Amino acid sequence: MSEPTLLVLQADPPPRLGKLTGRVRVSYADEQSLAAQLPHADVLLAWDFTSDAVRLAWPGDGPRPRWVHTPSAGVDRLLCPELAESDTVVTNARGVFEEPIAEYVAGLVLAMAKDLPGTLELQRQRRWRHREGLRVAGSRATVVGAGPIGRAVAATLEALGITVAVVGRTARGAIHGTEDLDRLLARADWVVCAAPLTEATRGMFDRRRFALMQPSARFINVGRGPLVVEDDLVAALNDRVITGAALDVFTSEPLEPDSALWDVPGLIVSPHMSGDTVGWRDRLGEQFVDLYDLWEAGKPFPNVVDKKRGYVPMHD
Amino acid sequence: MSEPTLLVLQADPPPRLGKLTGRVRVSYADEQSLAAQLPHADVLLAWDFTSDAVRLAWPGDGPRPRWVHTPSAGVDRLLCPELAESDTVVTNARGVFEEPIAEYVAGLVLAMAKDLPGTLELQRQRRWRHREGLRVAGSRATVVGAGPIGRAVAATLEALGITVAVVGRTARGAIHGTEDLDRLLARADWVVCAAPLTEATRGMFDRRRFALMQPSARFINVGRGPLVVEDDLVAALNDRVITGAALDVFTSEPLEPDSALWDVPGLIVSPHMSGDTVGWRDRLGEQFVDLYDLWEAGKPFPNVVDKKRGYVPMHD
Repeated sequence: MSEPTLLVLQADPPPRLGKLTGRVRVSYADEQSLAAQLPHADVLLAWDFTSDAVRLAWPGDGPRPRWVHTPSAGVDRLLCPELAESDTVVTNARGVFEEPIAEYVAGLVLAMAKDLPGTLELQRQRRWRHREGLRVAGSRATVVGAGPIGRAVAATLEALGITVAVVGRTARGAIHGTEDLDRLLARADWVVCAAPLTEATRGMFDRRRFALMQPSARFINVGRGPLVVEDDLVAALNDRVITGAALDVFTSEPLEPDSALWDVPGLIVSPHMSGDTVGWRDRLGEQFVDLYDLWEAGKPFPNVVDKKRGYVPMHD
Repeated sequence: MSEPTLLVLQADPPPRLGKLTGRVRVSYADEQSLAAQLPHADVLLAWDFTSDAVRLAWPGDGPRPRWVHTPSAGVDRLLCPELAESDTVVTNARGVFEEPIAEYVAGLVLAMAKDLPGTLELQRQRRWRHREGLRVAGSRATVVGAGPIGRAVAATLEALGITVAVVGRTARGAIHGTEDLDRLLARADWVVCAAPLTEATRGMFDRRRFALMQPSARFINVGRGPLVVEDDLVAALNDRVITGAALDVFTSEPLEPDSALWDVPGLIVSPHMSGDTVGWRDRLGEQFVDLYDLWEAGKPFPNVVDKKRGYVPMHD
């Protein structure tokens, strides 16, 4: 039997694939050549997870990869109706980003509670101005998104003494369903968005939902940019409907230098980095090799995307 | 029996003392009038804990208050040999600042791990530049100071998955003694100073000790300014002996606008605010009333300063 063909949609060279040497024929595509190469690949590693090329180039019901892996948590850039309808299996990077993102969110919560942005600005101005921080223990967070990222965020915030409610699509166990969302937004000191981007969640944080939040509330988005109606968030901050926000993801990335978002009072802007800690690319490469071992052995993947829902369902 | 005289060294008016109405005669002193009033007071509430006036005005072995309370954790500004030799009881604000400071330190650790200062500076410049953060879980911290603040810091860092060693004056249980300090500094990713300022600890963080630390180490001081030889820290940061630092306390407070410390690469400067969260003055007032109840009833205080050592010893 000849080796399977692994097609890599390349940004930078994937590291840690050495163990696949001799087991696959590797070819590389860029956004332009992807459409021509997809029909000849058994496996697609969509290493450039910031690209829309897979969705645009997907060959419909023609010859196509049997397995597509994306080294990201979200699969929104990848999925198209034809891929969703097909029997091609899609896997994601579950397991790599959860804990780093949870730490990042905890860092944002503490930084906002203690006004670290204000401290750094005063330092720049060489001004000594004492202020009072907030306690985070005893405060309330509502985490929207009941996947592994939302759950890791909840666990880390709980470790800091914060009372956390997690909201998913449907209620199960300690997870609240969408029907509780508005009520839980209204009582949260911290609202953290860690939801997948699907047609059901697009634009869910809009003018109406910001208006439900407390004037003292802070909003953090580590999910996907289009979950938030950015103009509505800007208005909510400018009009002091809420006190603060931090966005790590945006409708358009990278954010253009002339974007209005850079300069909104109370808004922290970071460049889609919440999950990326030193060595993350190595871990993503290693994860793909581990998955490849399973694929080759005909064993089930632990992280198969439900292509209709647009995320990997939790089994609880 | 006439009411005891409570002398208040006043900064702003102490809140929450209403329960003492009719039980004490209250008089107020400023730094100038303190010496004249001290001999006539039964109790001194050194409400302005940033003042050196008590030490300077203490009446030696003449008539003097039987009890001095300072609404701060550290008592270094208060103690003088004559007060230490006397039978006057000194109490501090144990219980008020521990948890807020622990959260503040956790916030600094996470902010440095995720380079939040860099993110905010890039935001100011409207520049999108992705960077990789550090995981804090699995990293190592050495906390210097085994009192309630050091222990609260340790517990909060441990809740984030950090491996913490606590160093006190003498080894006991899980606490390391001073003999382990240098070894523990050498292996720490985070060094947190939460020690009392005494003759034994003054200047303990000096050129030699910074040189022991890893080049990747970050140093945080929430104790007292003079625990650190500030020029040595500046040199250690400028010469990249260590990677970063955060100072919330300084040898001279408030820091002057022309201080060199405002503008050192990798140094976060904050205005002695780590323990001060909304409502802190109320809590300090309430704490004094609770202590007064004990004093009036002749019951023992839970937070008596060992005036020879310069802090409240832990009973473990």
